[in-house]
Amino acid sequence: MPRLRLALNQIDSTVGDLAGNAEAVLRWTRHSAGQGAHLVAFPEMMLTGYPVEDLALRSSFVEASRAALRSLAARLADEGLGGLPVVVGYLDRSADARPRYGQPAGAPQNAVAVLHGGEVALSFAKHHLPNYGVFDEFRYFVPGDTMPVVRVRGVDVALAVCEDLWQDGGRVPAARSARAGLLLSVNASPYERDKDDTRLELVRKRAQEAGCTTAYLAMTGGQDELVFDGDSIVVDRDGAVLARAPQFSEGCVVLDLDLPAAAEAGAPTGVVDDGLRIDRVVLSEQPVPERPVPERPMPGRPVSGETVSGDGPALSGGHAEPLDDDEEVYSALVVGLRAYVTKNGFRSVLVGLSGGIDSALVAAIACDAVGAQHVHGVSMPSRYSSEHSRDDAAELARRTGLNYRTVPIEPMFDAYMGALGLTGLAEENLQSRLRGTLLMALSNQEGHLVLAPGNKSELAVGYSTLYGDSVGAYGPIKDVYKTSVFRLAEWRNRAAAARGETPPIPENSITKPPSAELRPGQVDTDSLPDYPVLDAILALYVDRDRGADEIVAAGYDRELVTRTLRMVDTAEYKRRQYPPGTKISAKGFGKDRRLPVTNRWRETG
Amino acid sequence: MPRLRLALNQIDSTVGDLAGNAEAVLRWTRHSAGQGAHLVAFPEMMLTGYPVEDLALRSSFVEASRAALRSLAARLADEGLGGLPVVVGYLDRSADARPRYGQPAGAPQNAVAVLHGGEVALSFAKHHLPNYGVFDEFRYFVPGDTMPVVRVRGVDVALAVCEDLWQDGGRVPAARSARAGLLLSVNASPYERDKDDTRLELVRKRAQEAGCTTAYLAMTGGQDELVFDGDSIVVDRDGAVLARAPQFSEGCVVLDLDLPAAAEAGAPTGVVDDGLRIDRVVLSEQPVPERPVPERPMPGRPVSGETVSGDGPALSGGHAEPLDDDEEVYSALVVGLRAYVTKNGFRSVLVGLSGGIDSALVAAIACDAVGAQHVHGVSMPSRYSSEHSRDDAAELARRTGLNYRTVPIEPMFDAYMGALGLTGLAEENLQSRLRGTLLMALSNQEGHLVLAPGNKSELAVGYSTLYGDSVGAYGPIKDVYKTSVFRLAEWRNRAAAARGETPPIPENSITKPPSAELRPGQVDTDSLPDYPVLDAILALYVDRDRGADEIVAAGYDRELVTRTLRMVDTAEYKRRQYPPGTKISAKGFGKDRRLPVTNRWRETG
Repeated sequence: MPRLRLALNQIDSTVGDLAGNAEAVLRWTRHSAGQGAHLVAFPEMMLTGYPVEDLALRSSFVEASRAALRSLAARLADEGLGGLPVVVGYLDRSADARPRYGQPAGAPQNAVAVLHGGEVALSFAKHHLPNYGVFDEFRYFVPGDTMPVVRVRGVDVALAVCEDLWQDGGRVPAARSARAGLLLSVNASPYERDKDDTRLELVRKRAQEAGCTTAYLAMTGGQDELVFDGDSIVVDRDGAVLARAPQFSEGCVVLDLDLPAAAEAGAPTGVVDDGLRIDRVVLSEQPVPERPVPERPMPGRPVSGETVSGDGPALSGGHAEPLDDDEEVYSALVVGLRAYVTKNGFRSVLVGLSGGIDSALVAAIACDAVGAQHVHGVSMPSRYSSEHSRDDAAELARRTGLNYRTVPIEPMFDAYMGALGLTGLAEENLQSRLRGTLLMALSNQEGHLVLAPGNKSELAVGYSTLYGDSVGAYGPIKDVYKTSVFRLAEWRNRAAAARGETPPIPENSITKPPSAELRPGQVDTDSLPDYPVLDAILALYVDRDRGADEIVAAGYDRELVTRTLRMVDTAEYKRRQYPPGTKISAKGFGKDRRLPVTNRWRETG
Repeated sequence: MPRLRLALNQIDSTVGDLAGNAEAVLRWTRHSAGQGAHLVAFPEMMLTGYPVEDLALRSSFVEASRAALRSLAARLADEGLGGLPVVVGYLDRSADARPRYGQPAGAPQNAVAVLHGGEVALSFAKHHLPNYGVFDEFRYFVPGDTMPVVRVRGVDVALAVCEDLWQDGGRVPAARSARAGLLLSVNASPYERDKDDTRLELVRKRAQEAGCTTAYLAMTGGQDELVFDGDSIVVDRDGAVLARAPQFSEGCVVLDLDLPAAAEAGAPTGVVDDGLRIDRVVLSEQPVPERPVPERPMPGRPVSGETVSGDGPALSGGHAEPLDDDEEVYSALVVGLRAYVTKNGFRSVLVGLSGGIDSALVAAIACDAVGAQHVHGVSMPSRYSSEHSRDDAAELARRTGLNYRTVPIEPMFDAYMGALGLTGLAEENLQSRLRGTLLMALSNQEGHLVLAPGNKSELAVGYSTLYGDSVGAYGPIKDVYKTSVFRLAEWRNRAAAARGETPPIPENSITKPPSAELRPGQVDTDSLPDYPVLDAILALYVDRDRGADEIVAAGYDRELVTRTLRMVDTAEYKRRQYPPGTKISAKGFGKDRRLPVTNRWRETG
């Protein structure tokens, strides 16, 4: 039984940065070669980043991706790595798709190449194209129609891409039909809360269907609203877990797999399941037994702010412990924000500090993401700001060490009131907008990226001011319900205490009743149900698409349900204008919820 | 040869307004019956409005649509209209689609029913699902797999929905295979510049392929970014135009068609083209020759602001002249804005008037859309505003009769400068943001919907201020290049002069050099290429997805191309935060252009 040493590079990639991404492939391939790997793999669309969205329809970008792939193959060979097969995702176009109405312009494909001997030894495209949730791949790609199988060291390795495993049929049964010894799937699977459990079960099930050891290589990092949590998995044909990589960490998983030798003759050819045509390439026949990979401890969790370079330690085959739920979500928010700031070329962020829990949590996340020395906080008190608000904001700054200043908005407020004589909601919103303008002025003057502090509960019901507290380039907690905001703040403080550090978030910000402080004595519960009830109703309505009657049947008061759903339905316009933020739930406010703004349908009649 | 009197109701519909849309179907069916029609048709998704987007995934909405359809059938029968077949689009779900991963939740369908005898005599779903441009139907719907044929007065009428005609294969050849005497397609086909010509050629070609007279019924009106321009078309089997309805007008096209009698026996059954299964229903066998429809003049163009009720005049078969290009685009902008304002329940709009051409054109469109008495303009001069700007704004108000006031922003500006000491871009953007805040304050106080004045050229290159001049619920000219802004302003003035009215837009607003007036002596050409060159480059890059090299090859200076494309690439984030506006080009800034915000791909290297 041949032994194959597999190197799975669970790393980040940046959309459009062909040169930088190619450089990362080179660096990590060198590292993999140093570990004695026989087969090296990189995530889905590694070379272009994921998701490329409309760039797929720009032929100059498709051609640039193809050229970068050929150049990468040549550079690998130039460095003496030509004998090592490298599996890398990129953007290609279908050579044989005839143009037709309704097909994406230029017939682009979500493709994967096997680089070997300085050339592209084989390439293929994703067969199942997801077009739900955050995915729009039917819009951008033409599906692939082959079942690629490469023979490496005498083992037939069947290849697949992400959704090829998620949907039934296609390459999983085809891998069995092709009598593969290993199924290798490369992925860019965005993080969702609790998805790690689903993913493990999926890979185990598919390995059993394919009838062979199955390796699931995931991307890690962040791209705009998407976070990739890593969590690469290798299971044997019975579904037993052979290796599992940590979440939210870059690294190279190296492991030795004892796999069945390819059939000497009579390996199936022709068309198999779902019309897939087997496409076989033999790269190396000779099985070479090697020394086993030395056992090493595997990092169990990401280290905040640490960059693992291609020269760093390998993550040898092992079982990383999944993070607990709060740490997992918090890590996703940190990784997402860090990626957004750095990929946009910013070095510092700016956040308005009200003394409340939302801005406190955003500031804590920002400090973890980019370092407190790069976080700027500004308190912008009005006549309605309480003394404790200013104290709590200052205390947060003291605890975290972020840069802090105070700019009262009274003079600007007086200037508007003098000219317009506003009342009620107009007067309340004015204060919020004056703060938004102030933050943007500081951003323009000093170069910080502004963070919007809105949470999912208030965005869902429209309890926020457009062009006011919605101002910002990124909303770190826009997909976090208010009850989760409290839980994450408490978790972050506990985690600090456990490490003997100062908990970043002042206790008072956590315990006092939430208030927008836009009029005397205002508290959130003047306008909204209690947050635990509100969030429970929102989770059913927004995340799970339940109707009013179903929510009432789940045990909630009809009047409360009616009032809440009506708020959500009428807040749609505002929500569309919110900045991006990390998606952490299956149904957030990104592509998952887009009602027509002017629709007259009210769930509540 | 039996004669069939067909009534095509080219009308508007509102997403989610099941009751209101059903009422419209009743009203126009009564009218059609009064005209002696044998077969009455309404547009695609008439009952739910189009596009329903995520409402398709909410089962309570799907069930509400199904219930509304049954109730509509019963009400038609109650009114004595049960004998008249009514073809109406609605939202349904597939009865036999088994749930599977990757399929839209609940298996919704873009469906059409034939109501007859108080019941749903037949229903079917769209076969070809568009998933490009403004369409996401593969995301929302499960395709239909039947070839529906209803026999009406002895004629076999094959039915189809919109994209079924645009893509090759499917119901067009299937209609021929089913030996249909008439192919009736119901549509909600969004307006694009020059699409009327494409559409006519399409219908002619498909009629020849189907081998029978083909009727193409279009929706008219507006829903958020989409405008539906009507332009329903009927052609005979040789492609000769029998009738063409006007653009942007609601109305009922009634015409008599002499059509081949259905095969007495042996009408094909079973599965035909693309796996479509013929689904035949016989509603009435007996051909009844009738008196022909009296010839009446057909309105050649929409009348600004006029509402055509279901009791209004029929548009008897005739040939409406297509509008000329400028009038067509201007009409689309007026119809789109009017729909947005009224469907959102607003009664008035507010626009900042700078004296420049953009805000002047927006104000003119607004006056045509909702009436000058409902348009509020405010001049917000700063220390950098020229005297002519204030004069031109006041002159616009005088000419149009809109409500006008002046609020200087100097006191607010001084308050911020005193606190922050801003310079350069921060100082420039501050002025724009102070105006945005002022408009929103007036909106909150007085209840107007704010209009954003940005044009496509400046949005494309990011020559605008986020939360400043981008503030507003709707951007009437966001898909209009600056050169078109000039052309439309001139056209509008000429049209007024031709009617003996005062041209709304001051000559000086058209002739003076464009300037943002945010610093002394500033003009647009300090930062941007001349608009004719800029717009030509943008049209190639944004609308046609051409690469840098191709644009240079088309005759533009490389340095200029590089500079322009770089501006577009880096403005992506801003553009995402702009309010909706009417889409008039095939590639605008809606769903058609969505690059990842943090992508590093620069067309210019």
